[in-house]
Amino acid sequence: MIGIKDIGYYIPAGRICNYERKEQFGIDDHFIAHKIGVEQVSQKAPEEETSDLCVKAFEDLSRRTPIDLTTIEAVIVVTQNPDRNIPHVSAMVHGKLGLPERCACFDISLGCSGFVYALSTMLGFMTANGMKKGLLITADPYSKVVDPDDKNTTLLFGDAAAATLISDSPRFTMGATTFGTIGKEHEKLAVNDQGILFMNGRAVFNFAAKYIPDDIRLMAERNGIELEQIDRFLLHQGSKIIVETIATKLGVDQEKVPFTTQSYGNTIASTIPILLQDELEGSAKKIAISGFGVGLSWASSLLLRAS
Amino acid sequence: MIGIKDIGYYIPAGRICNYERKEQFGIDDHFIAHKIGVEQVSQKAPEEETSDLCVKAFEDLSRRTPIDLTTIEAVIVVTQNPDRNIPHVSAMVHGKLGLPERCACFDISLGCSGFVYALSTMLGFMTANGMKKGLLITADPYSKVVDPDDKNTTLLFGDAAAATLISDSPRFTMGATTFGTIGKEHEKLAVNDQGILFMNGRAVFNFAAKYIPDDIRLMAERNGIELEQIDRFLLHQGSKIIVETIATKLGVDQEKVPFTTQSYGNTIASTIPILLQDELEGSAKKIAISGFGVGLSWASSLLLRAS
Repeated sequence: MIGIKDIGYYIPAGRICNYERKEQFGIDDHFIAHKIGVEQVSQKAPEEETSDLCVKAFEDLSRRTPIDLTTIEAVIVVTQNPDRNIPHVSAMVHGKLGLPERCACFDISLGCSGFVYALSTMLGFMTANGMKKGLLITADPYSKVVDPDDKNTTLLFGDAAAATLISDSPRFTMGATTFGTIGKEHEKLAVNDQGILFMNGRAVFNFAAKYIPDDIRLMAERNGIELEQIDRFLLHQGSKIIVETIATKLGVDQEKVPFTTQSYGNTIASTIPILLQDELEGSAKKIAISGFGVGLSWASSLLLRAS
Repeated sequence: MIGIKDIGYYIPAGRICNYERKEQFGIDDHFIAHKIGVEQVSQKAPEEETSDLCVKAFEDLSRRTPIDLTTIEAVIVVTQNPDRNIPHVSAMVHGKLGLPERCACFDISLGCSGFVYALSTMLGFMTANGMKKGLLITADPYSKVVDPDDKNTTLLFGDAAAATLISDSPRFTMGATTFGTIGKEHEKLAVNDQGILFMNGRAVFNFAAKYIPDDIRLMAERNGIELEQIDRFLLHQGSKIIVETIATKLGVDQEKVPFTTQSYGNTIASTIPILLQDELEGSAKKIAISGFGVGLSWASSLLLRAS
């Protein structure tokens, strides 16, 4: 069975400090530290392209675990901010890494639910095609589409990328997964005709607070376990308040539900793999993951430590 | 086992006639009729968006076969020309069709190899998640990125969309599939920083002529059959000359290798499902499909008629 072997990531060094923007946006320390929970957002250098972020995440991964590039049979990049729309970023990454010609590459367009969807997609695709090694890369630099004067977005979103090695000697395998979409609500979180991101923060919060606790319960049921048996809940880091709200609604200990993105922000589909990296060497055996956002879209799953 | 149940498609009524552009581009009737083979290219109306093309292809599908929307569990849209980059087109289509909330939606970014990749991806994803009904939609209106004064692209690419119903009562199942990528050559077919498509036609031709015949042989071998046992070869309709060249290199009868896109052109990932629609009611039992293009990327597979 294939699953997650290791994870590397790249968070650009550039930071915008939200405490320095209190006057501009009429916010206070409490709002920053306890509502959004994001004190700084990471920002890539202007010359760094999405494919560059992918390569840097791969380099971190390859420092953590030896990778024989000739064995890589598939690359999926999850992004809605590609270098350009044609070709797919995964082909550019394929070229930059010097991967073998017999390698399947494609991009998946999804936002904050992207890692959970793409992990299921990649495992299904690789299993169907008898593949043993692959790279699942998330890289969605929202600095390309965020208006720095829009309080609803610029205080939250940070740039990052994560590279997950899928392998037939996994540390975690994937259990039953739940998926959902409310396409008629897509305008709540979308770019406009000028390519600038708009978010109705309250509507997106309400969507997540309403749907995600029930979805995680359904996911647990489909995996045949009780919530109490789950060691960790790695939720999409939309904001501190949404993570805490979902944890409260689930009735689980807040310490099982980390919020760790104070210093770089909401990195879209990269938030869950960055959180998960911290768990690879840990003791957690059953880890719930849940992503939600653009679409509106969500997915939840259970990762099981391979014995 | 799930597979292809039915296919609908939409080719916009708008046409640009290549015979009327002979003087502009210094070409003759022979070039149009026998080299590129494309006499007219289809063009969507300016107000038609990618998601609209998807819906129209779905409407054609639903006229051919009854579809209970409440049973649809997954939608994949293959495009590199979305309405906007955020959200994914599949979410917009989900909203426009009124699909159920328990439906997985995501887009795949790939060009002319997209249908073969996405079919394998969708079958793997749906199988892994126990899903029985899904929609695989291709819609990549190149009129958004083609320069009407660029002979290398404007004479070839047409707008269209196709909607394929994936079902647990399939007419065709999918056999072993081969995949490949030459990412370092991606600049041979890409949009530039202004979003305008560039194609090195000779390089792309040479790539396809060199790689695709061998790939189809490998695919046949992995499926345990001889080329002679394959009833039809549905190749990506890049141009008449590339389809004929691949058929010649394979040593198979040209009549087994249709070229049918004279009146609308190369519709990217929609070319193969449009060709395949014609075969659904036919007698062909083993159908090879092969897509190749942007990436550079390719994939080949075998479709097997369900008894």
